[in-house]
Amino acid sequence: MHDATMHAFASDNWAGIHPEVLAALTTANTGHLPSYGDDVYTTQMQEVFKSHFGDQVEAWPVFNGTGANVIALQSMTDRWSAVICAESAHINMDECGAPERMGGLKLLTVPTPDGKLTPSLLDQQAWGWGMEHRAQPKVVSITQTTELGTLYSPEEIASICVYAHERGMAVHLDGARLANAAAALDLPLRAFTTDVDVDVLSFGGTKNGLLMGEVIVVLNSDASQGIKYLRKSAMQLSSKMRFISAQFLALLGGDLWLRNARHSNQMARLLYQAVRHLPKVEVTRPPQANAVFAIIPDEVTQRLQKRFRFNTWNVHTGEVRWMCSFDTSEADVETFVAALTDELQS
Amino acid sequence: MHDATMHAFASDNWAGIHPEVLAALTTANTGHLPSYGDDVYTTQMQEVFKSHFGDQVEAWPVFNGTGANVIALQSMTDRWSAVICAESAHINMDECGAPERMGGLKLLTVPTPDGKLTPSLLDQQAWGWGMEHRAQPKVVSITQTTELGTLYSPEEIASICVYAHERGMAVHLDGARLANAAAALDLPLRAFTTDVDVDVLSFGGTKNGLLMGEVIVVLNSDASQGIKYLRKSAMQLSSKMRFISAQFLALLGGDLWLRNARHSNQMARLLYQAVRHLPKVEVTRPPQANAVFAIIPDEVTQRLQKRFRFNTWNVHTGEVRWMCSFDTSEADVETFVAALTDELQS
Amino acid sequence: MHDATMHAFASDNWAGIHPEVLAALTTANTGHLPSYGDDVYTTQMQEVFKSHFGDQVEAWPVFNGTGANVIALQSMTDRWSAVICAESAHINMDECGAPERMGGLKLLTVPTPDGKLTPSLLDQQAWGWGMEHRAQPKVVSITQTTELGTLYSPEEIASICVYAHERGMAVHLDGARLANAAAALDLPLRAFTTDVDVDVLSFGGTKNGLLMGEVIVVLNSDASQGIKYLRKSAMQLSSKMRFISAQFLALLGGDLWLRNARHSNQMARLLYQAVRHLPKVEVTRPPQANAVFAIIPDEVTQRLQKRFRFNTWNVHTGEVRWMCSFDTSEADVETFVAALTDELQS
Amino acid sequence: MHDATMHAFASDNWAGIHPEVLAALTTANTGHLPSYGDDVYTTQMQEVFKSHFGDQVEAWPVFNGTGANVIALQSMTDRWSAVICAESAHINMDECGAPERMGGLKLLTVPTPDGKLTPSLLDQQAWGWGMEHRAQPKVVSITQTTELGTLYSPEEIASICVYAHERGMAVHLDGARLANAAAALDLPLRAFTTDVDVDVLSFGGTKNGLLMGEVIVVLNSDASQGIKYLRKSAMQLSSKMRFISAQFLALLGGDLWLRNARHSNQMARLLYQAVRHLPKVEVTRPPQANAVFAIIPDEVTQRLQKRFRFNTWNVHTGEVRWMCSFDTSEADVETFVAALTDELQS
Repeated sequence: MHDATMHAFASDNWAGIHPEVLAALTTANTGHLPSYGDDVYTTQMQEVFKSHFGDQVEAWPVFNGTGANVIALQSMTDRWSAVICAESAHINMDECGAPERMGGLKLLTVPTPDGKLTPSLLDQQAWGWGMEHRAQPKVVSITQTTELGTLYSPEEIASICVYAHERGMAVHLDGARLANAAAALDLPLRAFTTDVDVDVLSFGGTKNGLLMGEVIVVLNSDASQGIKYLRKSAMQLSSKMRFISAQFLALLGGDLWLRNARHSNQMARLLYQAVRHLPKVEVTRPPQANAVFAIIPDEVTQRLQKRFRFNTWNVHTGEVRWMCSFDTSEADVETFVAALTDELQS
Repeated sequence: MHDATMHAFASDNWAGIHPEVLAALTTANTGHLPSYGDDVYTTQMQEVFKSHFGDQVEAWPVFNGTGANVIALQSMTDRWSAVICAESAHINMDECGAPERMGGLKLLTVPTPDGKLTPSLLDQQAWGWGMEHRAQPKVVSITQTTELGTLYSPEEIASICVYAHERGMAVHLDGARLANAAAALDLPLRAFTTDVDVDVLSFGGTKNGLLMGEVIVVLNSDASQGIKYLRKSAMQLSSKMRFISAQFLALLGGDLWLRNARHSNQMARLLYQAVRHLPKVEVTRPPQANAVFAIIPDEVTQRLQKRFRFNTWNVHTGEVRWMCSFDTSEADVETFVAALTDELQS
Repeated sequence: MHDATMHAFASDNWAGIHPEVLAALTTANTGHLPSYGDDVYTTQMQEVFKSHFGDQVEAWPVFNGTGANVIALQSMTDRWSAVICAESAHINMDECGAPERMGGLKLLTVPTPDGKLTPSLLDQQAWGWGMEHRAQPKVVSITQTTELGTLYSPEEIASICVYAHERGMAVHLDGARLANAAAALDLPLRAFTTDVDVDVLSFGGTKNGLLMGEVIVVLNSDASQGIKYLRKSAMQLSSKMRFISAQFLALLGGDLWLRNARHSNQMARLLYQAVRHLPKVEVTRPPQANAVFAIIPDEVTQRLQKRFRFNTWNVHTGEVRWMCSFDTSEADVETFVAALTDELQS
Repeated sequence: MHDATMHAFASDNWAGIHPEVLAALTTANTGHLPSYGDDVYTTQMQEVFKSHFGDQVEAWPVFNGTGANVIALQSMTDRWSAVICAESAHINMDECGAPERMGGLKLLTVPTPDGKLTPSLLDQQAWGWGMEHRAQPKVVSITQTTELGTLYSPEEIASICVYAHERGMAVHLDGARLANAAAALDLPLRAFTTDVDVDVLSFGGTKNGLLMGEVIVVLNSDASQGIKYLRKSAMQLSSKMRFISAQFLALLGGDLWLRNARHSNQMARLLYQAVRHLPKVEVTRPPQANAVFAIIPDEVTQRLQKRFRFNTWNVHTGEVRWMCSFDTSEADVETFVAALTDELQS
């Protein structure tokens, strides 16, 4: 029903299911299994997450990233709490108010140059404990890799965790693209999460080759409670959960997660190398993961978007985002660069 | 990783994915497609729903039944509204307070003998419009087939719709097992929904052979607004939506939905025939769809549950529920009946 | 601007401010005082509540009863909790869904013959801990005196507290008319609250002679957290709090609370004595506090309501409620009884 | 019980009840009156608001400003809406997350130099209609006078209303100090509200001499719905409402509102004149209503706060706020200035 050859640079959720993941669905699809997570695949998935993040972790599969974030944040907060995040955070910009309306949470936002929080930026919002007029800051939420394609080093995350914990706050990490971060840092997943004292994370699968599925990973059980019930009341409890868990087994049981992430990062680097010196193309910042942000002339964007789908990021500046995914090929990049070059010269 | 031969009578969500549905996932899985529903499968799915329910309907895919119900009800209500439902309704008993907490809705419940509402039962809660101390009744929500395995006739649903509309209320139908109802009534889906003036329904796919997926079907667009935004803020907007839509195309594009439903209903009838005359087995009510409810001695339940998984429905009375699914075989029924007979004689 | 001689039997909130309370407002009204409760009247009010309920209690003034109930219940629950209450409870019937929508709480209701819960009635809803599909029962909420004018004995409340605590639940008491209960029982306020292990109560002032004001009294601080912030976010933090606190000092610092309550109870008893043997008047239950419930012919109600304001309680049965207040006089009762007698004979 | 001579510069809610308002409470306090607003004082109060704001307005008394704001905003929005406001807005800074948690609203905040929004500043957040990932901007909320003591001209408010209405948004005005604005502008209340097309406002009484009480004034009934029910479910429906309404009759029936506001503004001007040339005192901006903001040395602040209560506004800059109220006297100002001068010289 659709053009199977079309590859876009719009978002990594335009890609489909990785063949190994699809095969895992088929394998899991025989006979009956208990619903709501009481199945062997979900049990086994716990072990796989422990192998990556440490023996103490709990893994809670959910449907999507917004669900993972909102449930994680609720589990970390009191009813009167606030969450500090970057202004550019997905929870602030792209979840249609779900943290506020579904979670009852106030977001205290901080403008950042590159999507990354720092202790000094946090100072702007980390105050007012004990003042009843102010929703009480309880969680710092960061995104790795960020919505602007940038990357925290383990040390940077560690410094945020120290800052937060010293003030009685916990740290949530939105890891919709956590695999891309690990690939970019060339580090194990735990090196910049568990090992630097992140408390709870949303682990993304959808953008790295799953049909759909994210996992709330509780690294520090003291910082989170009630996910069992919150997940159900947040409408994120899957009945045939084996099919989410089996996907994560395929992704994280071996090195598929890393192969996919490395590949999409590599394609972004390739794209960056090819476009950085083109006239009238100003790459906003060197790509650190699988996205390239650049400013190009509006009329070029308009013509090019008729040939290749990608997103305008900032209508005021003309910045666009080119996102690579696990199935972006070198040929896709070359074709795209040729088209861009062509349109730049028209 | 699991015993592929195990078949249970616990719930129709213990079954897996129907092979035709799984094949459809594979077919849809090539190349890139726009995310969040802007894809050809989702567009085509609209047509399929129109073919079943009428040209005016809108179909909104979501992840699960609780999500479908809570979003549908929000789209039909004001912030100060209440929803009248049977005490046994899934929205009241099995959604961990999601309608209240996520939707902000008050449920006005009515005890029923068989899970079915009637105009006369509705009188208990359908009052108080204009009184500011009372959450304002705005929606009547019914379930077809009900949580107790019973079935509304088209006339019964029509009478509820007339009752509701005369009082300025709309009608929501939780159709987690709507296909089973159509099969049992031997009627098209629209005969007891669109044609009798139901306003909005939750159409279930998961329990009829999908990996996961439900659809909010707006039959009367005057009775519903904002689903586009409500779906996102309720964390039910799938990014790779093609994979939900493709499943529904497989299910509803041909007669798979009906074959599956007829089969599970037939298996329940077979089971009923086999157990109704067994000593110490009191079938609570003749099965109208794919579930058999019966009271058996507690010790039999306990022994039998070690051999076959099924749910105790009412600990006070000893009532149990045996649920058949699209992949329950005659052999499964026979084996189960043999085991039951065996345990009854122990 | 209004007929100052009109006295009704509609509700005890139709009365005005007791003169001693009004005088206290005047006394408190000089110069500047810190806002939001950091004033000497609020500090002193704490002591007065300690003198009645015990040294460990905390008292939190709020504007009204719905506010007190919803904040108290939030402070006692997790986000995924449910509250068990009588079907006739004010929180269920008369708060326009505030506990659900503002508190995010599910109410699990129990029909009762007389507005009073018992351990055996609680069994209907006190189950399902650990099941993620069910909002988790965490609080039992009772009303003293009940919405039906009945009275719990200390022993009855004690048995509910034992029942709740054994199951990990806490007990909330809606005491909108707690003073009337103390007067009726001829016991100190703590005898049927603190001393029988109630955890948190809403203490009503408005219906006992205040301009407006209720107090959340935390008897067991282990059962409640966050009221400081919940009160603000629930829009119930008074800026000029001295004026609520000063009223409670006037009410509870001496015996005004008891005088008012005894008087309104006595007027109800007088009314009861006068009407109980009238033909066509069926007193539904002997009055235990300041309300008389009776069934009288509809046409009598309609005629009588043109002369005296009172509420129809149940349109189906014709039951009406006659409520006495601190300023109901014997003459008011006599005039009313004469009017009733007159209309019964028409 | 307290020092009746103490006058502070902390907030206008440290003052008490104006004697004429207290007298009105006494007058209203005789006999019985229907509760919940069905009384003659509340009816008459409608007329008074019509006389100030126009015949079409509806006036809804509530307890406090946070309640007025949150109910007003809910009445103007859909469940998926967002509200654009200044970062310094009371609804964003001082309501403990009530708009988000109780109203389910997302606030889209804009940094401003002086607490005032402009069309050009609004551009930062007024976008994204039709995008389901973004809570939909539906209301612009401004404060008059602002939280920073500044004043909008009628033309400035008009330009915001035009901007909002052109984009399908409505305008809410937080008028906790609306009387001070009218006094400062020397204009009728409607000149910068009704006449420039503001849709709904929160009219403040507490800070202008009431015991307590605010009124939601709906200027454009097309822009607001459901306040009747929202007020109750938001726990802001007063039972003895006559006592709120009678206060507003006293305040707005004659010119008390204007006298009080003019006086507090005048005292702020006096204070400003006296301190503006003091060494080490930098007045942040010329006072436009009843507040003076200034930066003074921290050690002076600390010593002075032991003699006079006032608030530090910004711990980073050392900015303090001195607020005058209806009962601030010239002598109070003189004494304060003398103390300040004294401490500056220590």
